Amino acid sequence: MRYELHYWPSIQGRGEFVRLALEEAGAPYLDVGNAPEDEGLGIPALEDYLQGQKTRRPPFAPPFLKAGDEVVSHVANILQFLGPRLDLVPADEESRFWVHGLQLTITDLTAEAHDVHHPVAISLTYEEQQDEARRRAKAFAGERIRTYLSYFERVLGFNPAGDSWLVGERRSYVDLSLFQVVAGLTYAFPNAMRRLAPEIPRVLAVAERVAALPNIAAYLASPRRLAFSENGIFRHYPELDPA
Amino acid sequence: MRYELHYWPSIQGRGEFVRLALEEAGAPYLDVGNAPEDEGLGIPALEDYLQGQKTRRPPFAPPFLKAGDEVVSHVANILQFLGPRLDLVPADEESRFWVHGLQLTITDLTAEAHDVHHPVAISLTYEEQQDEARRRAKAFAGERIRTYLSYFERVLGFNPAGDSWLVGERRSYVDLSLFQVVAGLTYAFPNAMRRLAPEIPRVLAVAERVAALPNIAAYLASPRRLAFSENGIFRHYPELDPA
Repeated sequence: MRYELHYWPSIQGRGEFVRLALEEAGAPYLDVGNAPEDEGLGIPALEDYLQGQKTRRPPFAPPFLKAGDEVVSHVANILQFLGPRLDLVPADEESRFWVHGLQLTITDLTAEAHDVHHPVAISLTYEEQQDEARRRAKAFAGERIRTYLSYFERVLGFNPAGDSWLVGERRSYVDLSLFQVVAGLTYAFPNAMRRLAPEIPRVLAVAERVAALPNIAAYLASPRRLAFSENGIFRHYPELDPA
Repeated sequence: MRYELHYWPSIQGRGEFVRLALEEAGAPYLDVGNAPEDEGLGIPALEDYLQGQKTRRPPFAPPFLKAGDEVVSHVANILQFLGPRLDLVPADEESRFWVHGLQLTITDLTAEAHDVHHPVAISLTYEEQQDEARRRAKAFAGERIRTYLSYFERVLGFNPAGDSWLVGERRSYVDLSLFQVVAGLTYAFPNAMRRLAPEIPRVLAVAERVAALPNIAAYLASPRRLAFSENGIFRHYPELDPA
């Protein structure tokens, strides 16, 4: 089956967590948002689903995944859908709830990273809420990144199978997502991440291990890997990341 | 089996979404956070799990559920764990992913409602971020509540089984959660909700239908239903909800 990923074009955004899973598994997929509108794809194709013209179960927002006739929305939900199908999660049910819980923690961290540059409203530009953003960035870079990444550091230390991966002895989809938040936070807050690095060696090692997986390495070197930018979730504004 | 709900005491908070599911199903449960410390319960019991002394899979934060030896964290994850066990979700897998996606949308709405009074940092008090909160409340009450609740209004209209419940012809856990956000938003933003009411008749009817379920009605009338307050997620600050 060819999966369809529906997400806004031109940015990594939340769609990237799904792309990494599909790429690691070598699963065939169509990136609908980045495909041509004159072939019936692109944003208008997404809108048909959001407005309920193509499904009676319309998602609230992208990303969503179409698998056959089924539509699954929200990053963590898509990943738990794909996990067993693409061999990206341990087989036992208890581990699957555990991996999903970890993924939901990454969801929360990602939302907080986004809200650093949009602390007032997503309907306003960054420039319209820059004062509030500066204050929020101080708390986020000074406290929250540490709180989250130290948690994953501890989780790695607790893994009975060793600290190579978050759960069990193989990579699961949440390792790929941890790589993505480390990459995003390093892009957005290089100074804060440099200060934090000595406290999170296991987390940084997992991120390197993911980047070296053959399929991921090939993906990251391909044109399919879009660049980080100030239109995405992880944005680098130097004034929000003082030395 | 007696479930253990682990959540901070004295507030509804995120734990309330889980309490409503357990109460509707008539499932035996221990509310650990609200139980006495001198019986080995209360906050110290939660901390043992968070710090990894009682499990090698420590949750990031409450609420989490203990079911036998298993620990499941995050509201939406707990609810999808309980759903099949307590007959609170349709039987087919496709509907379960759909219900979980709806629940994750409620998760997002709940986080946004929280951040209205904490737009800068959760480590600061409301009073320390009141100016930012006022600006954020304008966007939240003016735009975001409508965006979310209009979405659920449309979902109800799309349900092939009718608009009595969000999914299928019976109540599922996400209906209970929709009731909770309507109750919380009505407490926090009564003026905004009064203005929005004509646009969301189906949503308000579901909330009333949930409140009238015998087990839920009994729970809401019991001392186990804690009051909304300015320590919880949904807080009523008159200055954030102008007439």
